[in-house]
Amino acid sequence: MKMVTNAAGREVPAEINGNSAVPFKGVGKHRPEGSKYGPPIPTCIDYPDDNNKVIGSLREALERCGLRDGMTISTHHHMRDGDLINNQVFDIAHEMGVKDLVWLPSASFPCNDPVIKYLEDGTVNRIEGSMNGPLGRFVSGGGMKGMAVLRSHGGRVQAIQDGEVKIDIAVLTAPSADSFGNAKGTGGPSAGGVLGYAKADYMFADRVIIVTDNLVELPCFPMEIEGNYVDFVVVVDKIGIPEKIVSGTTQITKSPDRLLIAELTATFLEKSGLLHDGATMQAGAGGTSLAIAVYAHQILRKKGWKFRLGFGGSTKYMVQMLEEGQMGYILDAQAFDLDSVRSAEVNPNHIPYPVYNAYNYHSKGNLTAMMDIMILGATEIDTGFNGNVVTHSDGLLLHGIGGWQNCLHARNVIIPLPLFRDRIPVIVDRVTTLCGPGELIDVIVTERGIAINPRRQDLIDAVKGKGLPLVSIEELKSIAERICGKPEKVSFDERVVAAIKWVDGTVIDAVHQVRK
Amino acid sequence: MKMVTNAAGREVPAEINGNSAVPFKGVGKHRPEGSKYGPPIPTCIDYPDDNNKVIGSLREALERCGLRDGMTISTHHHMRDGDLINNQVFDIAHEMGVKDLVWLPSASFPCNDPVIKYLEDGTVNRIEGSMNGPLGRFVSGGGMKGMAVLRSHGGRVQAIQDGEVKIDIAVLTAPSADSFGNAKGTGGPSAGGVLGYAKADYMFADRVIIVTDNLVELPCFPMEIEGNYVDFVVVVDKIGIPEKIVSGTTQITKSPDRLLIAELTATFLEKSGLLHDGATMQAGAGGTSLAIAVYAHQILRKKGWKFRLGFGGSTKYMVQMLEEGQMGYILDAQAFDLDSVRSAEVNPNHIPYPVYNAYNYHSKGNLTAMMDIMILGATEIDTGFNGNVVTHSDGLLLHGIGGWQNCLHARNVIIPLPLFRDRIPVIVDRVTTLCGPGELIDVIVTERGIAINPRRQDLIDAVKGKGLPLVSIEELKSIAERICGKPEKVSFDERVVAAIKWVDGTVIDAVHQVRK
Repeated sequence: MKMVTNAAGREVPAEINGNSAVPFKGVGKHRPEGSKYGPPIPTCIDYPDDNNKVIGSLREALERCGLRDGMTISTHHHMRDGDLINNQVFDIAHEMGVKDLVWLPSASFPCNDPVIKYLEDGTVNRIEGSMNGPLGRFVSGGGMKGMAVLRSHGGRVQAIQDGEVKIDIAVLTAPSADSFGNAKGTGGPSAGGVLGYAKADYMFADRVIIVTDNLVELPCFPMEIEGNYVDFVVVVDKIGIPEKIVSGTTQITKSPDRLLIAELTATFLEKSGLLHDGATMQAGAGGTSLAIAVYAHQILRKKGWKFRLGFGGSTKYMVQMLEEGQMGYILDAQAFDLDSVRSAEVNPNHIPYPVYNAYNYHSKGNLTAMMDIMILGATEIDTGFNGNVVTHSDGLLLHGIGGWQNCLHARNVIIPLPLFRDRIPVIVDRVTTLCGPGELIDVIVTERGIAINPRRQDLIDAVKGKGLPLVSIEELKSIAERICGKPEKVSFDERVVAAIKWVDGTVIDAVHQVRK
Repeated sequence: MKMVTNAAGREVPAEINGNSAVPFKGVGKHRPEGSKYGPPIPTCIDYPDDNNKVIGSLREALERCGLRDGMTISTHHHMRDGDLINNQVFDIAHEMGVKDLVWLPSASFPCNDPVIKYLEDGTVNRIEGSMNGPLGRFVSGGGMKGMAVLRSHGGRVQAIQDGEVKIDIAVLTAPSADSFGNAKGTGGPSAGGVLGYAKADYMFADRVIIVTDNLVELPCFPMEIEGNYVDFVVVVDKIGIPEKIVSGTTQITKSPDRLLIAELTATFLEKSGLLHDGATMQAGAGGTSLAIAVYAHQILRKKGWKFRLGFGGSTKYMVQMLEEGQMGYILDAQAFDLDSVRSAEVNPNHIPYPVYNAYNYHSKGNLTAMMDIMILGATEIDTGFNGNVVTHSDGLLLHGIGGWQNCLHARNVIIPLPLFRDRIPVIVDRVTTLCGPGELIDVIVTERGIAINPRRQDLIDAVKGKGLPLVSIEELKSIAERICGKPEKVSFDERVVAAIKWVDGTVIDAVHQVRK
């Protein structure tokens, strides 16, 4: 395989699954050419006179969409680990004898591990999307025929929009849908909140199938999926296992170390002035992020301040801010817990906001650039502030990129993390896999101190002399190594099992097969 | 000019403004080829870091969009006859010395008559869109350099989507917008209700300029225009004259003849069974349509029935049904009066629903096919039930097609009209200009009787023996001619001044220059 060195000094494949690839050129350096992808022009002639698109079964829908060898099938992950439909697509493909499919999920979950058998038998050639747990291990071990392509949520919609990946059939589960195909994330036995990952799929796919267990009267509103783009509606008994679709409640960390990190982060936000009346903020649904949200909420209440808006994945802690008046709006692409689902359904200021609008770098601006405070995680950060989120230091591909790369474009990116996990240092000399360039990462908050990127002299000045435990990133690395020792180098095979795309479609790094 | 005979027996140009044209093939016969238009791929690199797209003036915005000779400029008509911006675009083009522009308005109004001078001096080559009053007379008289192309609202979005017309710059006025370019039809001094005509323009135009007199904080919600597609936001003192944007109130006809027609139409709806619990209905904002809505409302109330939904242009009579419980939802593309503007702003069941979703024939189904009852007008109907809406019997181009052709795809199309206007018969042997094939028009209701299209034996059977004044269309024509005499034939020049498109982009008829 021909490899080239990209602008970040990483060796990346010049070709991915038979198509030439553009190596990463630097942040904001790659200018796209050409036009957005245009799917085939449909006509009302081909749709029922009464617009009732309900059809007997998923198999019938797939057959009528012309499912055949080599097609690309997209799905979204709104049913998360409770998903009962996505695997069925490949069961059916297998029954039909279809081979070499490309699966383009917005994310995969442990419930999707059965797809491994279809990667083994050739039904599926490759996955272009996140691979966690057993699927990731399978890919890292070299089990997948094609090369995986890992994209951020925004990179995925960019690739779909730009025609870098062409969806033949999108199979989209929906907690509520009408017979025309309008669909939404609330209502019914499998309510999940909002369907923020569906938009690029339904707009650009050649064929679109909606699968629901809750057929409602026209019009299913809000139309998070527009029926005008839908070919078939399949009604089944159950699209998901409710307790696995959303958590009953998202849980704040109970670890004293993590709570310390969260408190330190909130103090940094306050003392730096980043937290102010009218600020915008995005955190995640991890235990530390939730704790930060709670601390930030306390500060806002104390000061009589209000976030102008927050971007979800929504959690009950954001909903509390919204309901108690410390957050103007929740713009939301997915709801993580039952409080968020309820809020998305009833609160007019809890607004569905698709990833296509929030994260797409090939757009006329996007939401992340408007976020003042962005709280993110990482598996590794190196002394150049570069970040890794997909592999562990053992080289195994164990996580997707999610919205992480996209969120790096926020005004202030703060990564709270423990200095080591399972006695493996998290701050390293050079990240195993480069997912995000250090110039976009501003602050690392650990239980042993806060390292501010030297590029952000303004932030360093803002907190100077305010009693915060400021340290250099090199010091953080030394502390970690003093405690845990220097980790052994992983031994990789030459074969590239996955390409890591940057938000503009260029290749920022490659993941190699792990030597057995 | 080479002319060809289309499937409706009309002579149409084989070429329009230098591009070959497809003659009408019959209803549901033309199958589109190729892909939807893809505008150039944008990148966040080219947009401000803080996403603030507000710019000093419309001229600066047009210059930065690269306004130059031959470009196509689209506008919408949401400010109706109160519009203060659309003419300015051409004033600026004239100042800049730009020539041969194509203007693609969703509709024009008397306030746009000043554009005539730019048609005369070559700033504008042609208008592709509705032309009423003086503009229509100007075109009919042969004053426009290029050939006019008249499309229905749905045909316009079909042409934009399919790349038959490529918008270089869309200039879209918005009663409210934020600095990112998200925009909506409510709020501010120029509130107009909803922006249902903007969607295809902002999605498919290369460059998009929002002009507002009401800059609001992020996020401007609902985002009827998505900031992700917007290049510049221009803030001006005033985008429209409020009393000309919407009527204070829409007025029911006071003419005894029209009231009789309205009552007869409502009686027909009731006796035919078309009006039933759960039916869907669309009427217009004309005086007779409003009266029909009021009569229908009375019937619903009496029976305890409810329309499942109505599609706007919304009026206070629809709002009354919504508020009193006789209509489940108003799906709305434009609001016609102040009651509708208020309802659109506050009632969650009054839902913005773009023309792109309602009327586009090159879509996977659309809303019109789901309407049970469709009340339309016409300037002429002939004995083949064919309809004309753009010219009068004098041959002058005096109206746009509006959504009329699109609405013909409803389940039951009913046209209430007077038998003659100004002593000119409305029922004729052959319509002057063919806008809609008779096979799609079901019932003609006049003050002298109701003619049901013989193709609709089901409707004939449904009302047989129920005391309705049923007559044949030929009888209606005879009655009119007995009263008014047979109208003189108009004398046309050979030159084609306007092509009339069908909903699928084919050419259904041509309008010739009127001989002076």
